[in-house]
Amino acid sequence: MSYSLGSDAMLNLFTDDSIMGEQFSFSADLSAMIDFERALARAEGSAGLISSDHAGRIAEALDAFEPDYEALRAGFLKDGAAPPSLVAQIRQALDPDIRSSFHFGGTSQDLMDTSLMVRLKRCVALSTTRLKALDDRLALLADCYSDELKLQARTRMQIALPISVREKIRNWRTPISRLSTTKPTSFPLQLGGPEGEARKLGAHYAEIAGAMAEMLGLDAPENHWQTDRQPLMGIAFWFSQIASAMGKIGQDVLFMCQSEVGEARLAGGGSSSAMPHKQNPVRAEIVVALARYCQTQMNGLNTASIHENERSGTAWTLEWMLLPALVVATGSILSNTTEMLDGLTFAEGRD
Amino acid sequence: MSYSLGSDAMLNLFTDDSIMGEQFSFSADLSAMIDFERALARAEGSAGLISSDHAGRIAEALDAFEPDYEALRAGFLKDGAAPPSLVAQIRQALDPDIRSSFHFGGTSQDLMDTSLMVRLKRCVALSTTRLKALDDRLALLADCYSDELKLQARTRMQIALPISVREKIRNWRTPISRLSTTKPTSFPLQLGGPEGEARKLGAHYAEIAGAMAEMLGLDAPENHWQTDRQPLMGIAFWFSQIASAMGKIGQDVLFMCQSEVGEARLAGGGSSSAMPHKQNPVRAEIVVALARYCQTQMNGLNTASIHENERSGTAWTLEWMLLPALVVATGSILSNTTEMLDGLTFAEGRD
Amino acid sequence: MSYSLGSDAMLNLFTDDSIMGEQFSFSADLSAMIDFERALARAEGSAGLISSDHAGRIAEALDAFEPDYEALRAGFLKDGAAPPSLVAQIRQALDPDIRSSFHFGGTSQDLMDTSLMVRLKRCVALSTTRLKALDDRLALLADCYSDELKLQARTRMQIALPISVREKIRNWRTPISRLSTTKPTSFPLQLGGPEGEARKLGAHYAEIAGAMAEMLGLDAPENHWQTDRQPLMGIAFWFSQIASAMGKIGQDVLFMCQSEVGEARLAGGGSSSAMPHKQNPVRAEIVVALARYCQTQMNGLNTASIHENERSGTAWTLEWMLLPALVVATGSILSNTTEMLDGLTFAEGRD
Amino acid sequence: MSYSLGSDAMLNLFTDDSIMGEQFSFSADLSAMIDFERALARAEGSAGLISSDHAGRIAEALDAFEPDYEALRAGFLKDGAAPPSLVAQIRQALDPDIRSSFHFGGTSQDLMDTSLMVRLKRCVALSTTRLKALDDRLALLADCYSDELKLQARTRMQIALPISVREKIRNWRTPISRLSTTKPTSFPLQLGGPEGEARKLGAHYAEIAGAMAEMLGLDAPENHWQTDRQPLMGIAFWFSQIASAMGKIGQDVLFMCQSEVGEARLAGGGSSSAMPHKQNPVRAEIVVALARYCQTQMNGLNTASIHENERSGTAWTLEWMLLPALVVATGSILSNTTEMLDGLTFAEGRD
Repeated sequence: MSYSLGSDAMLNLFTDDSIMGEQFSFSADLSAMIDFERALARAEGSAGLISSDHAGRIAEALDAFEPDYEALRAGFLKDGAAPPSLVAQIRQALDPDIRSSFHFGGTSQDLMDTSLMVRLKRCVALSTTRLKALDDRLALLADCYSDELKLQARTRMQIALPISVREKIRNWRTPISRLSTTKPTSFPLQLGGPEGEARKLGAHYAEIAGAMAEMLGLDAPENHWQTDRQPLMGIAFWFSQIASAMGKIGQDVLFMCQSEVGEARLAGGGSSSAMPHKQNPVRAEIVVALARYCQTQMNGLNTASIHENERSGTAWTLEWMLLPALVVATGSILSNTTEMLDGLTFAEGRD
Repeated sequence: MSYSLGSDAMLNLFTDDSIMGEQFSFSADLSAMIDFERALARAEGSAGLISSDHAGRIAEALDAFEPDYEALRAGFLKDGAAPPSLVAQIRQALDPDIRSSFHFGGTSQDLMDTSLMVRLKRCVALSTTRLKALDDRLALLADCYSDELKLQARTRMQIALPISVREKIRNWRTPISRLSTTKPTSFPLQLGGPEGEARKLGAHYAEIAGAMAEMLGLDAPENHWQTDRQPLMGIAFWFSQIASAMGKIGQDVLFMCQSEVGEARLAGGGSSSAMPHKQNPVRAEIVVALARYCQTQMNGLNTASIHENERSGTAWTLEWMLLPALVVATGSILSNTTEMLDGLTFAEGRD
Repeated sequence: MSYSLGSDAMLNLFTDDSIMGEQFSFSADLSAMIDFERALARAEGSAGLISSDHAGRIAEALDAFEPDYEALRAGFLKDGAAPPSLVAQIRQALDPDIRSSFHFGGTSQDLMDTSLMVRLKRCVALSTTRLKALDDRLALLADCYSDELKLQARTRMQIALPISVREKIRNWRTPISRLSTTKPTSFPLQLGGPEGEARKLGAHYAEIAGAMAEMLGLDAPENHWQTDRQPLMGIAFWFSQIASAMGKIGQDVLFMCQSEVGEARLAGGGSSSAMPHKQNPVRAEIVVALARYCQTQMNGLNTASIHENERSGTAWTLEWMLLPALVVATGSILSNTTEMLDGLTFAEGRD
Repeated sequence: MSYSLGSDAMLNLFTDDSIMGEQFSFSADLSAMIDFERALARAEGSAGLISSDHAGRIAEALDAFEPDYEALRAGFLKDGAAPPSLVAQIRQALDPDIRSSFHFGGTSQDLMDTSLMVRLKRCVALSTTRLKALDDRLALLADCYSDELKLQARTRMQIALPISVREKIRNWRTPISRLSTTKPTSFPLQLGGPEGEARKLGAHYAEIAGAMAEMLGLDAPENHWQTDRQPLMGIAFWFSQIASAMGKIGQDVLFMCQSEVGEARLAGGGSSSAMPHKQNPVRAEIVVALARYCQTQMNGLNTASIHENERSGTAWTLEWMLLPALVVATGSILSNTTEMLDGLTFAEGRD
């Protein structure tokens, strides 16, 4: 029997039914890599690096291309990357006379990093929308409470002075708003060829990279970033900051839900197998656990961010294990936070 | 579309076809939790805490019990843990007169931690066998080379003095042998009841815990360990040490496979989409990446190891996300290391 | 005997003789906290919240104030923070009639976080200057080599195709230039008072915060950030990105210095106690080790970034342990990288 | 101005006045390295590898040797390790005719790792004693309370059922007792020579290693462990487990000290600069922060545990930055926990 991380029981907690989860499927990856090849052929055709007839025929063939998934999986395992067998399959589907015009000057990492960037850009856009919705949700929640209802500010786990529900919620919202202003805005195309210098493109590099970036909705790169993972790390860090901001809300809810504090209550709380009187603040627990899970994957990425020489096969593979986990778990934390807020009510504390 | 970590493309790298991967399926977890309940009923029957007739009828009902998976998944999500709905389903399947004898004195964490320990014990046993096989494989590999063939010892990334293939391999084997002697030997039953003190079992605690441990192939606990995660952390650390020992071998292979060094060669190396002359050392890259992946999850577990009060809902949930990932990826690293060694040949270096 | 981390032998590796290291001394911290109090008094005087006579006399007293360090250290240990005893000492030094106007509406965290932000701003400025100098140094180094000298691009630890020294160096410079454009630009004042809502300042909050920020060279905050650590985390992440960019250079130098590769040589290499022929690439090793040290501290900070309730005594204390270590080690990595580059020469590789 | 991590203000929190802190001073390191050389000379003299006259004269010279610290520091920085200049200084102090008998067959890492192991063994012994004292302290504390006094067990941050003070304390003590039984018992000598194979010792290896181990109070190694860091990692993990066990106690105290809970009170609590009524649970905060600090350093060590080739200059240097920090902070957490317990009283909770 085969196994995948997060399978079965825990799968449910990680499930992200949004378009975000879908971005890390094999098919989404392949589709974006095929888009890369189409853009490359077109841009090279326009620049006169390959004939425009070849460019057009390659683009058409890519439109019609149907990958043999089984063979691609086998190739992925053998090559440690999908592009070699993908490129081979596509080349096989082309008329022999145009094969040498295909994938001209590109390399595996160009396909993979560009595909990743296209999909991350979608995830950032989607997360921004969801953060906005969450912020609105918090604003509505604040509006439900008059300033009469007093909670206790607690500093260093001791009661300090009263604060209102609105103030508490404002403190949750500040980092959420800031995430909108600090959201990643640079999603560079990766184009470097075998050694990073894209020699086959020669003087046409800027023209081709610019045209491709426009076709793919990305930014034209100043330089390849195949070992310079800052563009990726900045995006990953943003996702981890979302996770931490949600974790703060979940943590606060847990503290307020404590039996003796009683300032918050989560509807739909989990039951206990032994104590029928208990209502466990399940959704808040999951939010905090997911936040810590995201931090863990981010820390691994941080450690993986030094790529040796001109391309690192190990750091690369490690990124594929950690980054999707971080992004999808961030998607899941956003849904779980929303669900938690839907069940949240505040009350005058017991003190 | 739903998503799970490690899905699709990366799934292949993580796949562990052994019985080890299977241990973290929902069905394996449920099955071990049902075993817990059977052992609890029998032990309580023998101790006279419930009638032996009830104990026998509960055990029979558990033998015949068929879980409604769909409902259990829903319950899991709602309660943040599987046992509440599992216990409810089983209780429903019992004759009303014996229901109060069921799950007597137990609590969710007793089921979950015990189930985890039973399955970890299997994973440790399996890994020990696989480490032994790997060690034998290395011994055979060493035997293939005469002492004439000289590699270079490299210290601080500079050539030091010659060493033989056998010496190189001996250095890989030492930590593997040590892992056999340091392997976890304590797999305690968890039995604490709602607050950890198992009051309903009263003076029968040691008797019941001892009997249950024997039935389940576990060790009788001196105390519950519901917030004392040392037993779990020790096991997790051992798995992470396997990963690091394999990572060392993979790292060394990568260094020796460098074009200029040429002391090692991996058959079946991955091809490049742009440079047909290249043979990439894919299997070694995957071994190193998996080692770093395992270290990442271990580090998260380390951070999660302080459980507040008498039971932590967040640290618990986080463990479920990280520990299976660590163990299954360790399984995967063992298969990938074996596969790497199958393709490994040494050669006089180019210097 | 007392001990401090990084003492003695290792101290040398961490020593940062620049103004950056000095920022984390107790005296620099106290001095910035005293500046906070002066700015608070003046702003409150202008706003009419305290009398302008009191404000002037407080400012004068602060100018003349000489802290009793010994008592402050004892207070720090007792209170877990320096401000309570600092405020008490200052208050003691004031004429009794103006004591109630002092520290009006402020709290310990306001002093500490603002002091930290002032000093971090200086560290960012200094690091920016040093990054610029390093970038210029790299440009000069590139200019020393004609395009004739060919290195090998290595991808996945295999020789790919030739690249020039200038191209190699350009790849190191890209992330350094980007660090100039992504450098932190927001250094907010912290002003929240006991519960974060700064109630004693009332409607004057924006006016006072704005005036104080201007006096202290900081940004006026939209909201307090006593539990919202994004401002701090963004700065810490930037430092860790410097460390990773330097680590990449160090790592590449190590790979190129390998005996069989011979594309780079570090003058002043360390000697071996046993092998006189060896020249160890010490400075590059230290750069890589410091990069990994910085990543470690950053990962700890990431884990510490969820502060519970309205002020977290534990997360706070943890920040003080990790953040200075990260920043000072980044300073050290910048000096060590410069020193490494001073001794670096490239050569046609041995292949 | 020079700087060291943890300097000034934070220094106090890390200060460990015990012999443990002293182990990581430069002088303790040098002294243990000199012991290594003495043992090496004597063992080689007995084995006839060097003349026994030379061995005796080397031992005498070592007894009288006074290191030039300033020169050693400079050498350390240049060589990235202390031994090369230490060995050179000692050799200079020897009569020319016996110089070639000195450091015969040894290498820098032999001195450094053996010195580290000797000092870690002392730290383990000292920590064991302190854990025992702490356990006794907890036993005494438990004895102060009758079973009448009821605390609340809290599971998933909700009140579950009552437990007694004694039961609470028993749960803290279980992991402490287990740490006594799982304490590291293997402290191997490191002896490998330049390439790990100690060729100059030839067939005398086992004899010499055995004699040296006995003289130094260490275990005779089966193989060198210069790249096999399991012996070190096992010890580091044990220290991190101490930290986590203390962190658990600190965390629980913080939860019980919450204003609304009121089940515990810490005497000598820190005061607030703004709220005279508050008593902050400072010592518990420091314990938790130190626990998280230790986990952070442990995680870095875990990441550093794959040493490439036959000796890694970077992983080695990183260990020196992280391991002393972990051990000394563990020492500090033990003192801080003791101090916390000295001020701890329990009370019937407010509910």
